[in-house]
Amino acid sequence: MNYISIKNIDNLSQWVQDALKIKKNPLKNKKLGKNKTLGMLFFNPSLRTRLSTQKAALNLGMNVMVMNFTNEGWTLEFEDGVIMNQGASEHIKEAAEVISQYCDIIAIRAFAGLIDKEKDNAETVMAGFLKHATVPIVNMEGATGHPLQSLADAITMEEHKTPHRPKVVLTWAPHPKALPQAVANSFVEMMQKQENMDFVITHPQGYELNPEITKDSKIEYDQDKAFENADFIYAKNWSNYNEYGQITNADSNWTVTAEKMALTNNAKFMHCLPVRRNMIVTDEVIDSENSIVIEQANNRTYSAQLVLQKILNNVK
Amino acid sequence: MNYISIKNIDNLSQWVQDALKIKKNPLKNKKLGKNKTLGMLFFNPSLRTRLSTQKAALNLGMNVMVMNFTNEGWTLEFEDGVIMNQGASEHIKEAAEVISQYCDIIAIRAFAGLIDKEKDNAETVMAGFLKHATVPIVNMEGATGHPLQSLADAITMEEHKTPHRPKVVLTWAPHPKALPQAVANSFVEMMQKQENMDFVITHPQGYELNPEITKDSKIEYDQDKAFENADFIYAKNWSNYNEYGQITNADSNWTVTAEKMALTNNAKFMHCLPVRRNMIVTDEVIDSENSIVIEQANNRTYSAQLVLQKILNNVK
Amino acid sequence: MNYISIKNIDNLSQWVQDALKIKKNPLKNKKLGKNKTLGMLFFNPSLRTRLSTQKAALNLGMNVMVMNFTNEGWTLEFEDGVIMNQGASEHIKEAAEVISQYCDIIAIRAFAGLIDKEKDNAETVMAGFLKHATVPIVNMEGATGHPLQSLADAITMEEHKTPHRPKVVLTWAPHPKALPQAVANSFVEMMQKQENMDFVITHPQGYELNPEITKDSKIEYDQDKAFENADFIYAKNWSNYNEYGQITNADSNWTVTAEKMALTNNAKFMHCLPVRRNMIVTDEVIDSENSIVIEQANNRTYSAQLVLQKILNNVK
Repeated sequence: MNYISIKNIDNLSQWVQDALKIKKNPLKNKKLGKNKTLGMLFFNPSLRTRLSTQKAALNLGMNVMVMNFTNEGWTLEFEDGVIMNQGASEHIKEAAEVISQYCDIIAIRAFAGLIDKEKDNAETVMAGFLKHATVPIVNMEGATGHPLQSLADAITMEEHKTPHRPKVVLTWAPHPKALPQAVANSFVEMMQKQENMDFVITHPQGYELNPEITKDSKIEYDQDKAFENADFIYAKNWSNYNEYGQITNADSNWTVTAEKMALTNNAKFMHCLPVRRNMIVTDEVIDSENSIVIEQANNRTYSAQLVLQKILNNVK
Repeated sequence: MNYISIKNIDNLSQWVQDALKIKKNPLKNKKLGKNKTLGMLFFNPSLRTRLSTQKAALNLGMNVMVMNFTNEGWTLEFEDGVIMNQGASEHIKEAAEVISQYCDIIAIRAFAGLIDKEKDNAETVMAGFLKHATVPIVNMEGATGHPLQSLADAITMEEHKTPHRPKVVLTWAPHPKALPQAVANSFVEMMQKQENMDFVITHPQGYELNPEITKDSKIEYDQDKAFENADFIYAKNWSNYNEYGQITNADSNWTVTAEKMALTNNAKFMHCLPVRRNMIVTDEVIDSENSIVIEQANNRTYSAQLVLQKILNNVK
Repeated sequence: MNYISIKNIDNLSQWVQDALKIKKNPLKNKKLGKNKTLGMLFFNPSLRTRLSTQKAALNLGMNVMVMNFTNEGWTLEFEDGVIMNQGASEHIKEAAEVISQYCDIIAIRAFAGLIDKEKDNAETVMAGFLKHATVPIVNMEGATGHPLQSLADAITMEEHKTPHRPKVVLTWAPHPKALPQAVANSFVEMMQKQENMDFVITHPQGYELNPEITKDSKIEYDQDKAFENADFIYAKNWSNYNEYGQITNADSNWTVTAEKMALTNNAKFMHCLPVRRNMIVTDEVIDSENSIVIEQANNRTYSAQLVLQKILNNVK
């Protein structure tokens, strides 16, 4: 069993309930991971993912080996058949097979480069490990998805569930740097699995996510209209998918403000963090009682622990 | 309970005795830290602090998660109310609150930048974590203090205590790079808590430490005179506090030599390490039997372990 | 007991048998390392060594503290008697003595610089730790040897042993970057301890390894002739030892191809990894059934575990 995408969740509501059970008693399965080793491989920076996934593994009694590939290991080659006379010292084939011998589960973070759309969509690093590793792989944010985050988001929404069928809005917001679409993609895929929620995506014209991911999810280009009666506002920036990796819009009118939040049904404010204050969201909103971003981060531990627990139960 | 400054020590002689008890049987409280996690956050390089604090946590049975913020995480913003459209990706508010959810204790190393005196004196990083974290904070060397070091120094002096009231001298010594005042500051504050010791600070004119720290501690500008009858010579460089962060003196006459040590009462030589040989101190002195620098480093484990133990006992 | 060189192996065939016993039941001695700490110090990148040595220590129940000296610690000075007014912040003497107080075993990786032959041959870093540390030292690849690798190689050859006296060939192969001789050196030294094997080294004229290491080992400059009837082909690049650290040959005729392998007695293909595909060896050969490079990497865990186990048994 791998956890690469929201698609790997067979029954979202069951997973959420299981995670909430773990949250109530995180050390209950302390023996499950005994003498099992999680290898965490980072090709990019990480705070929440680094610490929460480690914490989840420790809660399960696992050993953890952390490795920053960028400065601690060798540059990897992902293409087959090349003459390796350039910068890359090691082929993914050997790297993945070798690491599989030292670890029971391999977790990988490898962001989109945002230069080559095809390469990013191919998830070169993640796919390389999936193809050549002989142990389960966990996605700690790939080029096109961040499923541990979106599972944590689902857990957090369950904890704040409304008595009525809620309206959930994913809103684009401006950011000074070009960011990947990964978090937004997985959030969309997770929402598509929610049976009792209404879901709207709002973003400027031209900022459409990959249509193979959004499918028939509702898109509303008028942010104000999208916010009307919303119960959850999930803010996130992403760079342009069509003009791939470009910033074609920096309109501060898309920042989530108290005025915008006033249009909602007293909505909770969500973001995956790290967040640029007063770009994505004003201090007023993120510091308000309706902000549940810190809880989202907390649930990263239980989302990771659920995934590790399922894999360990499967491996045994 | 936090451990940010020597001021947090309520009873120095009792703490020293407690640390010496830990040193005799470091694994006695191996169960105290079970299922507790220490997060160690580094904004600067570290050898002794990195390894001794980790060792202390392991002796207490704690889990340890180490993170180098500079290359593994996100650049933090410490100002409130700013529009985060520059280099910083995450605000200290979120970072501190989030990490508090994964760790039971957070330990932080964040040196003085030596450019902006006011900012350094404000201990921007440490203060940010103190303000926003929801778990205890341990100072692994901040901009203005290094209290784990000075506690280890107090332990080391107790192990070498003289039958008479000792004279302890903190002497400035030359160094090719501009260094913070942190170690000197905490040593001064620790000495001010010593009831049965005489204390003298010696340094070139103009190299006065922050007077709010030195208070009425005796300053003697004549190094030779200061060394007379000394029982402990603690050498340390710091950059100019008045002409902030500048090196205005590189006089090799301030290097601690065998001739200088001959003026003392067969004094022990102390330094926090890392030390520049033949700049701060000659090989002859640091390699002599009177040098106790290696023992000081050893006591870093027990100083950290005492602090963690006190916090864990408090947290339970 | 230190493990610095193949010379530290008193009885190679016994060590190999012991390692194979560990491989059958790696967790048998889980209590041996309890409350013991392995400090792993890296002055260079590492994947296999980093993870397999950690894994070995965890199998023995040890604590592990990993430190990348290059970006996490201080630049070290290795010369005695110098005035430390340049880049180095700490002398090896203090560093080694201090770390010895926090760790029960210190493992070190410090590659050849390939600029100063004398300095590399002196193994400045390893020798500095050996001289000043007060706990056992393990070589995780030094300037002139990589004995954990060669021990793993010996284990792997034993697992594939031929019914007849085997012929083992160490062959040089081209590489775009100047590499150290360490792996080749230790392989030669290990082969010199093999009593029931024939051993041939093949490389271009001028690419002789240090004659003090090769001694009377057979050298054959004709690669094809060397490959005839070989049972094991061990490929490795190294830079010129005579024109020290230079690449004076990049002849792709030395690449190990299927044609070359056809000259052998259905030989196994070996390499320490990371390997440059289609430079050192063609895809066809390394992906063939006769390639045992992944098994070699796997045996790194058991080679390290045997060494740690021997040291722990010695230390107790």
